Amino acid sequence: MASSSSSDSSAPQTPQLRKDSVTNRWVIFSPARAKRPSDFKSKTPINPNQQQQQCPFCIGHEHECAPEIFRVPPDNPDWKLRVIQNLYPALSRDIPAAEEENNSDSGRVVVNGFGFHDVVIETPVHSVQLSDLSPREIGEVLVAHTRRIKQLMSYDSIKYVQVFKNHGASAGASMSHSHSQIMALPVVPPAVATRLGSMKEYFDQTGKCSVCESNSKDLLIDVSAHFISIVPFAATFPFEMWIIPLDHSSHFYELDSEKAVELGGLLKLVLRKMSLQLNNPPFNFMVQTSPLGENASQLPYSHWFLQIVPQLSVVAGFEMGTGCYINPVFPEDAAKVLREVKVS
Amino acid sequence: MASSSSSDSSAPQTPQLRKDSVTNRWVIFSPARAKRPSDFKSKTPINPNQQQQQCPFCIGHEHECAPEIFRVPPDNPDWKLRVIQNLYPALSRDIPAAEEENNSDSGRVVVNGFGFHDVVIETPVHSVQLSDLSPREIGEVLVAHTRRIKQLMSYDSIKYVQVFKNHGASAGASMSHSHSQIMALPVVPPAVATRLGSMKEYFDQTGKCSVCESNSKDLLIDVSAHFISIVPFAATFPFEMWIIPLDHSSHFYELDSEKAVELGGLLKLVLRKMSLQLNNPPFNFMVQTSPLGENASQLPYSHWFLQIVPQLSVVAGFEMGTGCYINPVFPEDAAKVLREVKVS
Ligand SMILES: Nc1ncnc2c1ncn2[C@@H]1O[C@H](COP(=O)(O)OP(=O)(O)O[C@H]2O[C@H](CO)[C@@H](O)[C@H](O)[C@H]2O)[C@@H](O)[C@H]1O
Ligand SMILES: Nc1ncnc2c1ncn2[C@@H]1O[C@H](COP(=O)(O)OP(=O)(O)O[C@H]2O[C@H](CO)[C@@H](O)[C@H](O)[C@H]2O)[C@@H](O)[C@H]1O
Repeated sequence: MASSSSSDSSAPQTPQLRKDSVTNRWVIFSPARAKRPSDFKSKTPINPNQQQQQCPFCIGHEHECAPEIFRVPPDNPDWKLRVIQNLYPALSRDIPAAEEENNSDSGRVVVNGFGFHDVVIETPVHSVQLSDLSPREIGEVLVAHTRRIKQLMSYDSIKYVQVFKNHGASAGASMSHSHSQIMALPVVPPAVATRLGSMKEYFDQTGKCSVCESNSKDLLIDVSAHFISIVPFAATFPFEMWIIPLDHSSHFYELDSEKAVELGGLLKLVLRKMSLQLNNPPFNFMVQTSPLGENASQLPYSHWFLQIVPQLSVVAGFEMGTGCYINPVFPEDAAKVLREVKVS
Repeated sequence: MASSSSSDSSAPQTPQLRKDSVTNRWVIFSPARAKRPSDFKSKTPINPNQQQQQCPFCIGHEHECAPEIFRVPPDNPDWKLRVIQNLYPALSRDIPAAEEENNSDSGRVVVNGFGFHDVVIETPVHSVQLSDLSPREIGEVLVAHTRRIKQLMSYDSIKYVQVFKNHGASAGASMSHSHSQIMALPVVPPAVATRLGSMKEYFDQTGKCSVCESNSKDLLIDVSAHFISIVPFAATFPFEMWIIPLDHSSHFYELDSEKAVELGGLLKLVLRKMSLQLNNPPFNFMVQTSPLGENASQLPYSHWFLQIVPQLSVVAGFEMGTGCYINPVFPEDAAKVLREVKVS
């Protein structure tokens, strides 16, 4: 696939704006603001967790947590993972389902904060990080996400489920015990609507799926039988990575448990490479999927993926004002660096 | 103007989603995640700057800076402010103006990174912060912004100019000497296009300007002859504030020097209240204005304003994934707290 960089993957030396055909976002790639891509390191690396006396997510402290939804294996005090309610939920499952209240006088649009906000405790042991788990165990975490989404699908008023992980304080984590979160929303959120619209436009213009088309040699990091990891062509953040299923599939919850193990393996590899190359940075990962209630045949242009973002720079006034991002590292360069990291 | 809160301005006790009619953004207001609004404090307050030996922005160090564009007063070694080129510009003024290069094979959209990236040194003295300046001096900073925008308007390929300020390391500032930045872009950035579209939709539906309509008693902080400060109805961030000109005006560069002094006074008040109430937090401010080359009569729905955001919380996986934000403080409560701060 063509790209603006020359064949040896060396990136241009003048700044360039790129528009991502998936997210529809302009990103400024700015060599003048860059160190060498191989010099990027987190300034706030994560120390391996110390065992904490007071962590409610640790095994044996289940009574300090909000109610459990399910555990794996079921009914077993020696659990491997637990899905629980969030003790401080952003949305409430105990109020009437959302009804759009459009105050016509003022044009103010208000919706009841009905929804679900759950936590997935990914391991019983405080000192274990997600990337320490085996591919099979990471697969079980991903299957727990899909299982919970399938439960939440039974609520008609839930329009979208966001699965995400915050790891490290400067990536927003208030709990250091390895966990992820699942939020079920009564609206399709703006970034999702924009992404769907952008993928549809690309499909209408080219007859192709924009996510399938992200796969190009100069952006590839690693590949397994059914998944690839890449740096996206217009990566919003330095060393942002996507893991994409090679089979065109609109919804993350369609992931089966066998492929989940394979995905677990590739995710583990990506996280270990990131850690080695970038000095164990705080990071976020987000599942980017399609709204509920729209089936695959309605969404020929939509394709889910995992987005992984190491926390290396601060979003500031320019980004807040414009929604445009400045990325000092060209994606071709980041991909080359990540391709070459040796994981023992 | 009606609002969903009761007349004593006490906010609802259950979560609520609100859609901002200006930014078109959904925000989740979540009392369960809140401390009392009056308990919010920055955990990384800014210490008054120490005089630094090595600061290129200090008076006497002009030779350590990238080239000057203008200073106030002109030709005076005893300057009050300077507008200079950014030494590490995100965009380059030395390459051909942007031409959209649409690689039809791959659908990849690339534009030359032509543009301008300037710095405004707001004071010659390292230890002085913007809020320490007099209303007249702050007015001069704002007039320097408008003057530079008017220069940049002569380039046809410049579509939008973003004026912003980062104050404090966790708000992204890499330089502690008081400064702001001006970036001139060859594209209309996505958040601006979304805002314009949202304001237009509101205008088409109601015949009114959404920014004019933001003015309501329960959201008001302070008022001067030609400006108000408010907390917006669907504030994205806790204690976010907007300063809005009462005269409906589409472009910030239309600000005249007399009104700039008045605006300087209201901005100073807002910054001092924020500092006192929230423990001198890092903050960003952004000028939200209209694209260049569209004049006021084409934009009856568009109205510029200043957005001020104290840095109190971390944007994490949920916000990155959805573009939806969680704000623990209801705007009515934040406005009440800020209205009542006594500034000596
Ligand atoms: N005993 C208990 N039982 C059950 N649940 C418990 C619990 N103790 C704590 N929790 C919950 O566990 C969650 C841990 O989540 P994270 O550490 O990933 O980040 P948090 O949601 O705090 O905020 C980050 O992520 C959000 C969403 O992206 C951002 O809004 C925010 O600014 C950022 O700091 C919290 O939501 C907390 O409410
Ligand atoms: N001697 C000199 N002469 C001229 N200019 C000089 C100079 N020395 C330094 N500069 C420039 O001065 C500017 C100071 O800007 P700020 O401190 O507001 O934040 P910065 O732009 O570094 O990045 C923050 O803001 C941007 C934009 O929002 C984010 O992308 C980023 O992550 C965040 O840290 C820098 O842009 C720097 O290049």
